[in-house]
Amino acid sequence: MTTVAAYAAPAPKAPLECTTIERRAVREFDVLIDIKFAGICHTDLHLVREGWGEAIFPLVPGHEIAGVVSEVGPGVTKYQVGDRVGVGCIVDSYRECDNCKAGQEQHCVRGAVQTYNGIGRDGEPTYGGYATHVVVDENFVVRIPDGLPLDAAAPMLCAGITTYAPLKQWGAGPGKKVAVVGLGGLGHVGVKIAHALGAEVAVLSQSLRKKDDGLKLGADHYYATSDPKTFEEVAGSFDLIVSTASAPLDLSAYLSLLKTGGALVNVGVPEEPITFHPFALIGGNKILAGSMIGGIPKTQELLDFCAEHASARRSSGSPPPRSTRRTSGCWRAMCGTGS
Amino acid sequence: MTTVAAYAAPAPKAPLECTTIERRAVREFDVLIDIKFAGICHTDLHLVREGWGEAIFPLVPGHEIAGVVSEVGPGVTKYQVGDRVGVGCIVDSYRECDNCKAGQEQHCVRGAVQTYNGIGRDGEPTYGGYATHVVVDENFVVRIPDGLPLDAAAPMLCAGITTYAPLKQWGAGPGKKVAVVGLGGLGHVGVKIAHALGAEVAVLSQSLRKKDDGLKLGADHYYATSDPKTFEEVAGSFDLIVSTASAPLDLSAYLSLLKTGGALVNVGVPEEPITFHPFALIGGNKILAGSMIGGIPKTQELLDFCAEHASARRSSGSPPPRSTRRTSGCWRAMCGTGS
Repeated sequence: MTTVAAYAAPAPKAPLECTTIERRAVREFDVLIDIKFAGICHTDLHLVREGWGEAIFPLVPGHEIAGVVSEVGPGVTKYQVGDRVGVGCIVDSYRECDNCKAGQEQHCVRGAVQTYNGIGRDGEPTYGGYATHVVVDENFVVRIPDGLPLDAAAPMLCAGITTYAPLKQWGAGPGKKVAVVGLGGLGHVGVKIAHALGAEVAVLSQSLRKKDDGLKLGADHYYATSDPKTFEEVAGSFDLIVSTASAPLDLSAYLSLLKTGGALVNVGVPEEPITFHPFALIGGNKILAGSMIGGIPKTQELLDFCAEHASARRSSGSPPPRSTRRTSGCWRAMCGTGS
Repeated sequence: MTTVAAYAAPAPKAPLECTTIERRAVREFDVLIDIKFAGICHTDLHLVREGWGEAIFPLVPGHEIAGVVSEVGPGVTKYQVGDRVGVGCIVDSYRECDNCKAGQEQHCVRGAVQTYNGIGRDGEPTYGGYATHVVVDENFVVRIPDGLPLDAAAPMLCAGITTYAPLKQWGAGPGKKVAVVGLGGLGHVGVKIAHALGAEVAVLSQSLRKKDDGLKLGADHYYATSDPKTFEEVAGSFDLIVSTASAPLDLSAYLSLLKTGGALVNVGVPEEPITFHPFALIGGNKILAGSMIGGIPKTQELLDFCAEHASARRSSGSPPPRSTRRTSGCWRAMCGTGS
C-alpha cells in the first residue's frame, strides 16, 4: 500500500478536501501512473451530490486521468516507465462475458469496476483521479499518442468517448447532418469530434449565448431551443442527434427534428423519467438510443483519431486542439506531493 | 364514378352499416380491383372510435385488401385483367421526396394518402376495402404470387408488413433471439415471420392462455408477462423485441430483457404517452425504435417471401399457411353485389 495525496468528499454534498488515500501495491499486471491532469466531469458532481442514488464515501472523483507510467508490475507487457497513458471511467471488469470479449467492458454483465465509487474485484473501494497517483491493471490503461497533449487527452477519456462512440456507431461523417444538444462538457467535445469526422454539425442550445464558441469549435449552425421557430426551421433535417443534456427534454419535439429513420442518442442522464408520445417514434421510423461511454479498444481508437487530427491541424497551420481547456474542466493534480 | 357496395361507419363509434359509396372512374394509371378478401385490423377500430384523434365520416375501413384486377387504365403496364393483387395501408403519395424515391412512400414528406380516412391527391376522401371494389394507382398495388392464397395474403398487407419491416431492419434471422410482445393480429403474424426468417422466437404475452397457438405458429418459447419471474428468467436475453401491444407497457422492464445493444421496436400504438427512465437505454446501449408499415417495394418483397415459404412448407408436407385465418380477422367482401 502507498499513501498518496487526493481530493475527497468526506460525505454527500460536502465540499472536497485535501487528504490522503491508500493505493494498492503494484501487482503483476498493474501500472502505477503519476497523474498529470484529471478532467472534471458532471458525473463527479452527480455522485458527490448522490443525484443518481447512494454513493460510497469518502469519494475521490475523477475518471478522465492523464499521466505518465512510473512503475510497472512484472507481468506488464503493454507499457513501460515513462509512457504517456490515460485511464477513463472503468478500471476493471470480469472479462468473461460476451461484452467483455467484444471490447465492451463497460457493459460487463457482472458489472465493470468504476474508476471511483466502485468496488474492485479485490473487494476494496476504488478512488478516482483527483489524486497524485493511481494503480490500474494494464488492460484498462490506454496509450496517449505523442501528438496529443496530456491536458487535451484527459477529457477524451469520458466526455470524448461518450460522444465519439455514438457518433461512430450511428454513422456521423461526410454527407450527414448531426445535431449536438447542449454545449457543456460533453457537448463541446461532441461538436469537435462530429466536425472532425466530416459531418455537418449543428448545436441545439438553450440560447445563443455560446454561439461564438460553438462555431469556433467546428459547428456549422447554431440554434436556440428557447426559440419555438427553431423547431419549425430544422424540422425533419438531422440524420443524428446526440443529446448531452442532463435536464429533461421535450423528447417528442426533438424527435421531430430527425429525418425518416434518424436516431436520437441520449448520453446525458436526466435524473427524472423520460416521456414521449409513441407516434413520435413510429411516424418516420425514428430511433431513440442510449450510449454509455465506450470500451477500451474504442477509447484507444478515439485517442489515435484525436492525435491524427491534431497532427493534421498543426501541419495545416491551425492551432493545436487545446480549446477543450476552456470549457471542459481540466484539473491539474497538485494537492500535496504524494508518496 | 361507379357506385359500389361497402360497409361504412356513418359517425364516430357507430356500428358499421351496409351502404354504397362512389369509386372514381378508372384513370390512365389506375386498376380496378374486384375485392375478394379484406383483413380486419385494430387500426379500423381505433379510427372508427376516433382513438387517435378526429376521423373522416362516413368511414369505410379496410387496408388489407386482396382481390383480382377487373379493369386497367390505358397507361397501366404492371397489371392485366385477372391478375391477383393486393392493396395495403396507402394508395398514393407525392412521389417527389427522398422517402418516396427510396420506396418509403409511407413516409412521404407531404403525407402519403391513406387507403381510407385519407384525402387523395384529387382532394376526395378515400374509402377502404370493406367494399366490393376499389380503384388504385398501379404503383400502389402489389402482386400476390400464385403460391399464396388470397385470404392468407390479405393480412400481410398491414399486419405482415408492419412486423416484417422491423424484423428485417433489425436483423431477425439465424442465431438471433427475437421476442414478440402480444399475440394478437400483429403479434401472431410477427411470430410466423420471425420463425420463417430463422430466428429463435419467444412470445411475451400477458398470460399463457394462447400458449398452444403461439407454439403452433412457430414460437420456441412462451412467457407470461403477468408473472414477475418472467422478467428475471429472460433478463438480458433478446437481440430484438417487437412490441405489438396497443396498451402502454412498463418500458423500462421490457428494455431490461434486451442484450447489450439490443433493440425494442414499437409497432403497436398506445393512445397514451410512454415513460421510462433514461438509464434503461444508456445502461447496455439499448435502442428503442418505431416502425410504421413499410413501403411498396418492401411489401412486395414480403409477399414473395411468404409465397416462397408457403411453397417450401407444402413441399415438406406441412399444411398451407392458413392459420392466419384463425386469429387475424380476414373478412370476405360480400355485402351486396356492387356494380
